[in-house]
Formats: sequence, C-alpha cells, structure tokens
Amino acid sequence: MTKILILGGGGMIGQKLAQRILDQNIFSNAQVTLFDRAFPPNELSAKTITGDISNPSTAQQLAHTRPDVIFHLAAIVSGQAEAEFDLGWSVNMMAMWHLLGALRDEHDASGGSYRPRVVFASSIAVFGGPFPDKIGDEFLSAPQTSYGAQKAACELLVSDFSRKGFIDGISLRLPTICVRPGKANAAASSFFSGIIREPLNGMEAILPVPDTVRHWHASPRSAARFLTHAALLNTDLLEGRRALNLPGISCTVAEQIEALRLVAGQDAVNRIKVKPDQTIMRMVDGWPRNFMPTRALALGFKAEKTFDEIINTYIQDDLKG
Amino acid sequence: MTKILILGGGGMIGQKLAQRILDQNIFSNAQVTLFDRAFPPNELSAKTITGDISNPSTAQQLAHTRPDVIFHLAAIVSGQAEAEFDLGWSVNMMAMWHLLGALRDEHDASGGSYRPRVVFASSIAVFGGPFPDKIGDEFLSAPQTSYGAQKAACELLVSDFSRKGFIDGISLRLPTICVRPGKANAAASSFFSGIIREPLNGMEAILPVPDTVRHWHASPRSAARFLTHAALLNTDLLEGRRALNLPGISCTVAEQIEALRLVAGQDAVNRIKVKPDQTIMRMVDGWPRNFMPTRALALGFKAEKTFDEIINTYIQDDLKG
Repeated sequence: MTKILILGGGGMIGQKLAQRILDQNIFSNAQVTLFDRAFPPNELSAKTITGDISNPSTAQQLAHTRPDVIFHLAAIVSGQAEAEFDLGWSVNMMAMWHLLGALRDEHDASGGSYRPRVVFASSIAVFGGPFPDKIGDEFLSAPQTSYGAQKAACELLVSDFSRKGFIDGISLRLPTICVRPGKANAAASSFFSGIIREPLNGMEAILPVPDTVRHWHASPRSAARFLTHAALLNTDLLEGRRALNLPGISCTVAEQIEALRLVAGQDAVNRIKVKPDQTIMRMVDGWPRNFMPTRALALGFKAEKTFDEIINTYIQDDLKG
Repeated sequence: MTKILILGGGGMIGQKLAQRILDQNIFSNAQVTLFDRAFPPNELSAKTITGDISNPSTAQQLAHTRPDVIFHLAAIVSGQAEAEFDLGWSVNMMAMWHLLGALRDEHDASGGSYRPRVVFASSIAVFGGPFPDKIGDEFLSAPQTSYGAQKAACELLVSDFSRKGFIDGISLRLPTICVRPGKANAAASSFFSGIIREPLNGMEAILPVPDTVRHWHASPRSAARFLTHAALLNTDLLEGRRALNLPGISCTVAEQIEALRLVAGQDAVNRIKVKPDQTIMRMVDGWPRNFMPTRALALGFKAEKTFDEIINTYIQDDLKG
C-alpha cells in the first residue's frame, strides 16, 4: 500500500492529480487522502479532511498518519498573497515550516526509518527580472512578489530538511498552468487561462495586458504528470539541488490568441476584450518568459510542444471533447 | 542624531563595526546600541543590551526603540548550525522573521514614516557546488549547509519586506572573514584564520584540509567597511535585487601559507600542523572559491587586493603593529 496525502487536494491541480493517481496504476495500491479548507463536489474515491494547513497542530495530525508521499499544493495565490501580506507568509511559508517540523518528529519517533517523499509545488514566480532570453538551471532566484519569495523560502526548507535526511523532498517550479478549468481565481496570472477558457465556453474574456506579453505555460494534465513523475524520481539524480525548472511552452498572448483562432475560429477570438490593468501588468512584467530546463528534461519531465496542444488538452479533459 | 542598533554587537565583527562607527564620523551624531547574548570586556562608548534575539518579545522591544539603522550580525555559526538543527533555524531564520514583523508593526504605527535601513550579514554559504570558475551576480543560491539555507531564507525576507516598503534592507554575502582575532570559534571556516593567527602569536595551528583548498576572504576591517557602506547606500541602485556578492581575495591555503612566510618567516609556517578532519573537509568542499562581484564593485564596495594585505591588516588592527 502507498499512503498518499495531497495538501491543497480540493484545488484544481489537486483534483487532477488525485484523478490521475486513482485512474492510472502509478503507485502500488494507492490510498489517497485529500486535505484542504473545502472541497468542490467530486466523485473521487479518496478520503477528504478539511482544515487549516497553517495550524501547527493540523500539521502534526497529518504527519502522524505517516504518508509515504506528500504532495504539497496548498497555497494562497499570487494576487491574494500580494494583497494580504500576513496571510501569504503564514500559509505559503510558515505552514511548510510546521509541516516539515512535524514530519521530522515522525522521522525521529520512527528511529529514522520514516522519511517521506515530499513533492512541493513551487513556481516560476521564484524568478524576478531582468531575465536572460531563456532562464537556465543556474539562474538566481530573485522573486519580485511575496508569493515568489514564499515559494523560494519553502524550497530552501525542503532542501535542507532533505539534506539532513528527515524527508526526501523535491520542489517543482511549475509553469503557469493553462488552461485552468472552472472560474477565474485571484492569481494575477488568471487571465492567461481566461482568454482561452471563456471564449470556448461562449463567454466574454478580459485581457488586462498587451498581447506582446510572453509567458511560460503547461497544461493541468502536464502539471499532474510532473507531480507523479517527481514522486517516483530517484532523488539521488538531483545531486543536492532539489528545486527544478520544468518544461513548458513559451508564447506571447498574441500567439495564444492565434492558437485559439486555429482551434475555435474568429468568433471565439472576438469574445476577448482588452481592458488594461496596471496592477496585473506590473506583476506580470516581473515574471519569467522563457526557460531552458535542461535538468528537468534530462530527468524525464515532459510538457506540451505547442499552445494548440494545450488548448486541445483542455477541450479533451475539461470540455469532454 | 542617528540611532544605530547592532544585533550581534558582542561578536568580533559587531565590535569592529561599532569601533569604526564611533571612531570615524560616518553617521551624523551616531548613538550606538549593541545587542547580544553577552559582551567581551571592551571600552566602546556604546550602550549594551543583553538578551536572546530569537525571543519575539525581545524583537518587539528592540524595534520599539525605532533605530534608524539596524545591523543584523547575530547568528549561530555554520558548524554549530549543522550540529544543532533547531537552534540554527530558530536563531538564524525565525529571529529575522520576528524582527521584521516587529519593524513592520512600528512602520504601521508610525503611519508609514518609519522605515529603517536593515543591513543583514549574509554569507557566501548561500552558494553550493558545483560552481563555475568565478561565481557571477546571477548564479543560483543552492546552499549545502543549514547555515547557508538560513541565510538565504533571511535574504528573501529582507527583500520582500523591503519591496513592500516596511523596511529598506540590504543583504551582504560576506566572504569568509580572515584573519579573525581572538580564539577559534565553532565555524567550520575557523581554521582559515587559525593558520595565520596562531603562528603570528607563537602558537601551534591545526590545518584540517589539504593546502589546495581555494577560498574567498576579506579582512574584519573590510567587513566593517562593507557594512557601513551598505548602511549609506542609495538602495534604488539595487534595482530590487537586495542581496549582494561582495569583493574579496580568492586564494588557496598554500597561497595563504606563502603570504604568512613572506610576512612572518619560516618559523611561523612551521607552527602549522596538518591534521585532516573529514567533517570540515566535506563542508568546505561545498563552499565557493572565487567570485566576479561586478555589482558590488560598481556600487563602491572595496576589499583587499592580496592576502599579504589581509595579514598586515590583522597585524595593524589586532596585534597593534
């Protein structure tokens, strides 16, 4: 049996990940537990626990069940972390501190035999400009948002607790996930999905930035695949550098729109309304645009090759064709 | 009046820094307060406060005095942080978290007018191998010690609290400080000073690593100068990247010994005894050897040009010629 705990299991990626684990025989006899503040209606055959991840006693209780694999996806999104400074640091950083401390207590209590795989959903927001044309695996992390700083701090914790042998962790700097199904969220990056999703659903979408903005994308399907791949990876291959830049698609908003035209026609494109938003523009300006994720590719992480493919993934997985 | 608070003011660098501020007219009408767990006997005309920096209420009390400039030098050294995991994270990271929170409370209470300069003593230990020949300003921080991870996490905090306007911070990645006067300490790097200091004082010194080990050094005098330079710097020039690699001297242990021979003769060199220590070798192996600190040089930070100069600085400042 493989005991799997997904923190943030009620979120979009958490649900996709649980579905993937339950549908495909990735872990032997997987027993999946989802933890979140709340859950959407769903038909997943997984246990759910509701609570607040930033509560230290919650971290202790979860650690005490000794999961073999913990996916940590729980986060306050970038826009909200920027607006609510305390909440962002509390949930996005201090909760990791409490969790790792609790896991270390279990490690100690087990006489050192308990050492769970922890897969942490970090983000390309750990990077801040100015950027090279393509960000390489040795580029500095100089975040320009609180969200990015919190993710980078967690990477350091995951790495040090792993180096000491308390856990066996890995941090994945996820590209912006696109196309997100469902409603827009408070992430400043939400529009990257909205301009594709809303038109495909016959609704109007707001574009708050110029169409020359370039960004780095992967589909929810790729995100779930990255996470399970990381859970099964031989972490010796990381050679002590436990935070990875992942593959994705680099394209401009204009190229996203062109792909939408190809897949769904001009009518869909006409539903995108330009409405500049200075706050979002300022945040997006500080975000990375393109990567050369050599290490992750060598370690077998795979993403889409074109933005058309990303749109078609959304249509297949979330509009059910 | 300039209210100056030096956290870790009882340590070697803290004392040198206080001396420099009091001797030279760097700040207008400087009123210096030193905070530490304990103080060595000294003749500095500075107020001293004794306490534990990792106590949140201590951080609040110190912040409540609203210093204009805060030098944060308080730390558990690398060897001890590696041996005592909890103590290291508590003093080297959580204490910064409490301090910055307390400073932010003062910022808020002042209606936003209080925004102190915070100069944080970070370290080249934020870097972990493999390294390029010379570490550039855009090289990733991938620490391989708890001490390095804690320093890197503090840099993220200083940067984000500064970006939000609560403080005006800067992190200095100090080279290994050499020659440290006084006794050896628990830093794994302590021997770099010991092999110069002990022979100059007629004592035997232990060399725990091969003499081919290359490392990055600056004198205590340079360290004090870096810190005051940072306190007076126009931080707009940092363009949001508030952690700096500083200038120093890159040399091998053999080159250090050769410089000792030049300055003090073969008798001094004969006092160095080779006694390999695997633990220290493993830690030092993961440390950086050389830098190209372009930004810091452009911002006016200056260090010694040769290791002879570093030895002579020790003789002038600490052996009083």
